[in-house]
Amino acid sequence: MARVLMLAFEGMQPLDFIAPYDLFHSAGVETLVVSENAKTQVDKRLGIAADASLSDAPEADAILVPGGHGIGSCLAHDATLEFLAHCKVQWYTSICTGSLLLAAAGLLRGYRATSHWRYVDLLALAGATPVKGKRIVIDRNRMTGGGVTAGIDFGLHLVAHLCGEDQARLAQLALEYAPVPPYAGSPEEALSETTHAYRERSAVRYAELEHALDEALLRFRG
Amino acid sequence: MARVLMLAFEGMQPLDFIAPYDLFHSAGVETLVVSENAKTQVDKRLGIAADASLSDAPEADAILVPGGHGIGSCLAHDATLEFLAHCKVQWYTSICTGSLLLAAAGLLRGYRATSHWRYVDLLALAGATPVKGKRIVIDRNRMTGGGVTAGIDFGLHLVAHLCGEDQARLAQLALEYAPVPPYAGSPEEALSETTHAYRERSAVRYAELEHALDEALLRFRG
Repeated sequence: MARVLMLAFEGMQPLDFIAPYDLFHSAGVETLVVSENAKTQVDKRLGIAADASLSDAPEADAILVPGGHGIGSCLAHDATLEFLAHCKVQWYTSICTGSLLLAAAGLLRGYRATSHWRYVDLLALAGATPVKGKRIVIDRNRMTGGGVTAGIDFGLHLVAHLCGEDQARLAQLALEYAPVPPYAGSPEEALSETTHAYRERSAVRYAELEHALDEALLRFRG
Repeated sequence: MARVLMLAFEGMQPLDFIAPYDLFHSAGVETLVVSENAKTQVDKRLGIAADASLSDAPEADAILVPGGHGIGSCLAHDATLEFLAHCKVQWYTSICTGSLLLAAAGLLRGYRATSHWRYVDLLALAGATPVKGKRIVIDRNRMTGGGVTAGIDFGLHLVAHLCGEDQARLAQLALEYAPVPPYAGSPEEALSETTHAYRERSAVRYAELEHALDEALLRFRG
């Protein structure tokens, strides 16, 4: 049975985590939640119990790092970066801004990778090649997904790699993933005023993440 | 500010709940989690704290019922059916097999509605008209979504109705919902062996839900 370690932290985006979590379970992939604490308070209501701490995570086929506003704090947390830098798995993977954490741990230097469209440029700070306009980027054993909802597409790709395409096809049908998005989900296709509004709304967060990644890269040497 | 009540219960499918939860928050919609208990243990790891109990839920614009394997127990639980039957909101909504619970509470009689593709036929037992092959079905003030991942499309439609299309467009871009599904997510498009395999795997659950809905309809009269 394939096994995936899933990093959990306060302030992670719930959907980044839950979309692949449900897909993995549907496909019979074992998930193990890894976190600094025995229980992570994701937001004011959602809590998730850990199966392992950062220092005792078992062997697995993959590690998955979700994104979310809590990524800023993770970038300042050497124990999390240490865990990732020394994690021995076949696949190093992320959803959304989780790729910034993989990058800070030195895992994307020299790799093509993606992130949430708003933050993907920041990967270049860590020596990665940012890829825009792709839902999933696979470069050797790094698999990075785009923003938030990319976790569904991502989960299906990882299931296909770990368990075969038949399991991935079955999981997609089980979760009835036949999307009919009413509007546009990428900056290329969205109305220019929508893209502009989101850029404005996220400008402070962009600057914060840029600073946090810079600091992590100066401080952390694995 | 628009407000949505979200029913939580043990054994709900995490993604049914979390996809609209994240979308609502991105769009500035207030969510209030309603549950029998102060804290709901969704699965062995995930817990969610309630904002209100079944007997003291505040006024809201919509009630959302997710699905999942716990729906069978909910169908046997009169307090949950009572809550739904007497809930005063503008919109009665569901994701996946959550529609079976709305149906058991008498809320879909004479309405067109949908559910997870595998279980949608069961809605006819409760006097609803099952609609197949549609991601979202809106009939007057009932909005029902298809299986699991339909919660994203659903959330965007409900946000558009409650807050306007500009907010929905912004939320779709914020969550980068530009899906690229690798396989098929509907029984019409999937390989016949995939559909057959899922039908086999879910045969026992289908029979259980059919029985639980029958029992609820015999027992519960609002």
